[in-house]
Amino acid sequence: MILILQKEASQEQVEAICCALERMKLTGEALSSGGGTVITVLEDVTEISSHVFSQLPGVEKVVRVQGEAKLATKIGLPLIELKNGVRFGAGQAPVVIGGPCSVEGQAQILHNARRVKDAGARMLRGGAYKPRSSPYEFQGLGLEALQYLAEASQQTSLPVVSEVMTPEQVELALSFVDMLQVGARNMYNYELLKELGKSSHPILLKRAFSATISEWLNAAEYIMSGGNQKVILCERGIRTFETATRNTLDLSAVAVVKKSSSLPVLVDPSHGTGRKDLVRVMSRAAIACGADGLIIEVHDCPEKAFSDGHQAITPEMLKEIVIDTQQIHALFNPVATSLQAGSDSLPAVAGRAAVC
Amino acid sequence: MILILQKEASQEQVEAICCALERMKLTGEALSSGGGTVITVLEDVTEISSHVFSQLPGVEKVVRVQGEAKLATKIGLPLIELKNGVRFGAGQAPVVIGGPCSVEGQAQILHNARRVKDAGARMLRGGAYKPRSSPYEFQGLGLEALQYLAEASQQTSLPVVSEVMTPEQVELALSFVDMLQVGARNMYNYELLKELGKSSHPILLKRAFSATISEWLNAAEYIMSGGNQKVILCERGIRTFETATRNTLDLSAVAVVKKSSSLPVLVDPSHGTGRKDLVRVMSRAAIACGADGLIIEVHDCPEKAFSDGHQAITPEMLKEIVIDTQQIHALFNPVATSLQAGSDSLPAVAGRAAVC
Amino acid sequence: MILILQKEASQEQVEAICCALERMKLTGEALSSGGGTVITVLEDVTEISSHVFSQLPGVEKVVRVQGEAKLATKIGLPLIELKNGVRFGAGQAPVVIGGPCSVEGQAQILHNARRVKDAGARMLRGGAYKPRSSPYEFQGLGLEALQYLAEASQQTSLPVVSEVMTPEQVELALSFVDMLQVGARNMYNYELLKELGKSSHPILLKRAFSATISEWLNAAEYIMSGGNQKVILCERGIRTFETATRNTLDLSAVAVVKKSSSLPVLVDPSHGTGRKDLVRVMSRAAIACGADGLIIEVHDCPEKAFSDGHQAITPEMLKEIVIDTQQIHALFNPVATSLQAGSDSLPAVAGRAAVC
Amino acid sequence: MILILQKEASQEQVEAICCALERMKLTGEALSSGGGTVITVLEDVTEISSHVFSQLPGVEKVVRVQGEAKLATKIGLPLIELKNGVRFGAGQAPVVIGGPCSVEGQAQILHNARRVKDAGARMLRGGAYKPRSSPYEFQGLGLEALQYLAEASQQTSLPVVSEVMTPEQVELALSFVDMLQVGARNMYNYELLKELGKSSHPILLKRAFSATISEWLNAAEYIMSGGNQKVILCERGIRTFETATRNTLDLSAVAVVKKSSSLPVLVDPSHGTGRKDLVRVMSRAAIACGADGLIIEVHDCPEKAFSDGHQAITPEMLKEIVIDTQQIHALFNPVATSLQAGSDSLPAVAGRAAVC
Repeated sequence: MILILQKEASQEQVEAICCALERMKLTGEALSSGGGTVITVLEDVTEISSHVFSQLPGVEKVVRVQGEAKLATKIGLPLIELKNGVRFGAGQAPVVIGGPCSVEGQAQILHNARRVKDAGARMLRGGAYKPRSSPYEFQGLGLEALQYLAEASQQTSLPVVSEVMTPEQVELALSFVDMLQVGARNMYNYELLKELGKSSHPILLKRAFSATISEWLNAAEYIMSGGNQKVILCERGIRTFETATRNTLDLSAVAVVKKSSSLPVLVDPSHGTGRKDLVRVMSRAAIACGADGLIIEVHDCPEKAFSDGHQAITPEMLKEIVIDTQQIHALFNPVATSLQAGSDSLPAVAGRAAVC
Repeated sequence: MILILQKEASQEQVEAICCALERMKLTGEALSSGGGTVITVLEDVTEISSHVFSQLPGVEKVVRVQGEAKLATKIGLPLIELKNGVRFGAGQAPVVIGGPCSVEGQAQILHNARRVKDAGARMLRGGAYKPRSSPYEFQGLGLEALQYLAEASQQTSLPVVSEVMTPEQVELALSFVDMLQVGARNMYNYELLKELGKSSHPILLKRAFSATISEWLNAAEYIMSGGNQKVILCERGIRTFETATRNTLDLSAVAVVKKSSSLPVLVDPSHGTGRKDLVRVMSRAAIACGADGLIIEVHDCPEKAFSDGHQAITPEMLKEIVIDTQQIHALFNPVATSLQAGSDSLPAVAGRAAVC
Repeated sequence: MILILQKEASQEQVEAICCALERMKLTGEALSSGGGTVITVLEDVTEISSHVFSQLPGVEKVVRVQGEAKLATKIGLPLIELKNGVRFGAGQAPVVIGGPCSVEGQAQILHNARRVKDAGARMLRGGAYKPRSSPYEFQGLGLEALQYLAEASQQTSLPVVSEVMTPEQVELALSFVDMLQVGARNMYNYELLKELGKSSHPILLKRAFSATISEWLNAAEYIMSGGNQKVILCERGIRTFETATRNTLDLSAVAVVKKSSSLPVLVDPSHGTGRKDLVRVMSRAAIACGADGLIIEVHDCPEKAFSDGHQAITPEMLKEIVIDTQQIHALFNPVATSLQAGSDSLPAVAGRAAVC
Repeated sequence: MILILQKEASQEQVEAICCALERMKLTGEALSSGGGTVITVLEDVTEISSHVFSQLPGVEKVVRVQGEAKLATKIGLPLIELKNGVRFGAGQAPVVIGGPCSVEGQAQILHNARRVKDAGARMLRGGAYKPRSSPYEFQGLGLEALQYLAEASQQTSLPVVSEVMTPEQVELALSFVDMLQVGARNMYNYELLKELGKSSHPILLKRAFSATISEWLNAAEYIMSGGNQKVILCERGIRTFETATRNTLDLSAVAVVKKSSSLPVLVDPSHGTGRKDLVRVMSRAAIACGADGLIIEVHDCPEKAFSDGHQAITPEMLKEIVIDTQQIHALFNPVATSLQAGSDSLPAVAGRAAVC
């Protein structure tokens, strides 16, 4: 940690700061730099709140030498495994998750689960609790939806992910689904994150549309510091001045996180763009820049979807994306892919991939 | 509502859309505009989710003629009254709320409550549950803090506002404080908003740092459509590319809301700027553009604050702001102020104001 | 300047960096901080490009202790004076500049000049060269407009400001107007700034809608380092995700600049909000937070304006704003104002102000 | 075009608007929609400035049915050809442009030109005039640099692109280079765009870091409406709140433009991320989502670069990117690529590609 002092800081203040550090069992080395004063703290202060330093009289700015999210930036985390051999991270092939925005009924989710499985998706998504901007929009079927999801999962063998919005929904939801999602609007819901930290289930942590990468990793740290290391990150677009897309899909963030963390990172091109006509090309781009998978809104009849139908693609389009994904991954990971092909449960798709 | 069709929309699609509208008991009038087609829906469709329209094949874009937040934009809402004559909105003089970021202990909050009261604040703030970016930062004293707040309120007669972060904290918190705050990070926490809609206590709803004004009003709508009309909005800065301030305080938002809603709007210059040296001038600007009050972080010893000390001002500085507030309000509301002066419980401050 | 090294930087790299600094006649002191390495450069390196340091192998990040814009952040710059006693900065009362977006003809600008003078404006604005998003929009009357502006200035004694867009327009424009404006779209037009640096006329430098405050001050530095110290800054809104206003007027930026620079800062509430119904309240806020003046689009018949009529106010509204400005300034600068009142050339307005 | 009227618009205003339209030989059809009034203008008004409509008393909002940039969104524009068979757009294989940020000397640019050619780049870039935030940073060698670029081009047969910043630099620069670049900071420099519209040379038009896609296409329209149809767009990152990357590379923008325009679109991953360690993966992503090429900062010794060395890659890294580019393009365009392979002048690279 470095403390940059105010231009007008007095010698007394410099000394007082060094004394204050000493009382904390820390060592400050003061140096003059072009007229200003800079104090370097020699010890590792990762777990000390920066306000402790910024409050000292005479301090202008505090610059951390180390990041704050220690667990989230740990190298070499183990892969995250779900039922039926679905595995995320640590060099695994990308996983495509598909399904409708909302669970709309028993038949709808079951039918869609079968369709996304046929298209090559390895996992099912479906909303039970829906965070909507307006109270007059469809809010999700809740418990009923969770039951339908569990049934669809059982019949298709696809693991299921669904969103929770409050700490008290966690336990109930976990008795029905395999992975819990923290939506973009709840990334800052720290009480929810703490609750999920107590669980042993994998968590899909979406980036808030206003979150810096650092805040996103810190949100992961909330879950991990609670004891649950199974965090899967998901980039889903950030809010910018551009209005041609619903959000601005920040694929560089995938690359940045990959450089500093070993947590798996998925991409959600559906919310990221808000436009079904862009989902396929942005899926390609996501895999090309290293994403560990995709989560895509799929509906067998988008125009009848209860929510977000303008960004849902059909199962037919999903199939193309699954193939794209396998091909791009194979291009940059030739060995890994052929090894994995042996245990692949999707012969049709693998067959097509082989043709290319 | 207006539906703008895709350039390539066929005559069959136009007819299919009109039929679809008819089945919903709606009337669509199709017109050609410069080669493209536009369908105007004649009825009021405020309560129908826009996806219902955007999903129709051939629709490019949906433009609402009316806003969505009906209750939040209602004209002539009654004023919101708390104990000891503290009143918000409907032409009342601005209310200044002061207090520390976090409740740090019994003596600290009591002492600070007395100091902010002496400075002319009409209401006390203090955090019991603290949403922090890092799990390693101070998280608040919780229940203990609520108890201290209640005691400080009793001893000073100042009503108290404190933040809640989950639905289950609501009931407990309400037995200790007078107004609940929804923090910027929880503006999208719709389950919390719904819970607050069941209460009859006033709610201070901060704008998320990434929220459009429309989303902010819709968050108010969540509370109001649940039955609780006592919503006080609070602008506290939005996230932009500028890094010289912690956030960009969007004072235009105050003016915009004032044009379309009769809900009171406060401004938080402490979080809005993140810099104690800017709090006073931005407070002046807030009142000058019509804010109904200020919520300011005050600490009798900012350099020892457990959190956010760099943006906390001293009680002495608060006093100057209270006077500024009265003077600016008086300048633009000469009669209202003199009437109110009669019942003013702050003779010292009124005295100083008269000098100017 | 501080160099934070990469986690994996080797001892050899540290030594190589120190050697490299030595070759530049600089001294680097390396310290370990919590496992990482930090090198403090002891000399003043303001005028050395930071890439010189960031390129050194092993350097992760470069943090400047001093800012880069030395001239723009100099304390105690002299006031900037135009003809007829119009003065900016150094404690002067705020100056209101008014006039139409575009000069539309001889009669129009003369008529509007008289109207804004009667309303109490001290200076006239009017566009001769108009930067427009679309090539099909009105582009300004050019030289003809400059001639009309000069004439209007002569007849009303109001100094005139008008925008230039290329280096070669500078000389011509200066033979007609008193102050040149660099518009928001041209703040990064460094060749234009260099040309203006050779002039001795005052320059109104608008902040680009995407510029950080630091870039804005650096743009001023371009002009000042060329020899022209007469720079007046103007905040006119930045681009954010909010769409309820044309831009987000960043009044905190006024306060920030006032803390670190003695250059005068104006505010343009017309472009800042894009809404005539917000101009008055945001003008109040601008003056309340310390702006040295306002530049406002005024049109005697906004609905017939060739450009930006939705944000132009009438001369009647301008008069109210001039009075507001005087009153708010008087509130916070009681002595300065009364002294100045003696030489005030606007008896009508001063008279009205006295009534309040 | 659709005019949405203010809630309180009177019947007289509706009639007055329709009369005003009639005087412009336009037809307005007024319809009531849920209590509000909407007027649809039946004719094509693309070339009429929208202020003409927004100024009419009673108009709240103007919604265009057609876009404004007619030429830039025309379907089926011809490909753009430079010397030595370098072709952009209309289904051509992606072109990789490489070279240093700045031309630093005769030997440096010649050496780098050879290196990027060997690496498989088809075109050379190099800055002669450099727009820099601070006046104290390196500003480019100007004319001298143009001469060195011409020489390097002649010796390597690579066409050259370089940036111009003012209208008067255009003619001179065109006598030395093959394509002129409008940098991000000059996208709004309309006088420059108009000057380039008179030329017959291809123009590389970078998106301003604050520009909406619509403004970007309108900037292209400035050039095209002047008579020059040879515009190549380039996405290079937009400014957002994220600070982990220099800009946020908006790859969705490539996909969006590809849907509505037939202009070629390049991607600049160097400025887009500002980090050499991200250039390769983001290059892959760019090609995967459909970019027509890449422009990359390459320096044989990045740590000695005069500018932007932190984002420059080595020629060795460029070679990998060229191969990636060919492979991804081949994956999604099997036939086109094999046809083109016949005339491919880069046997070494094609050889490696065949191995995969």
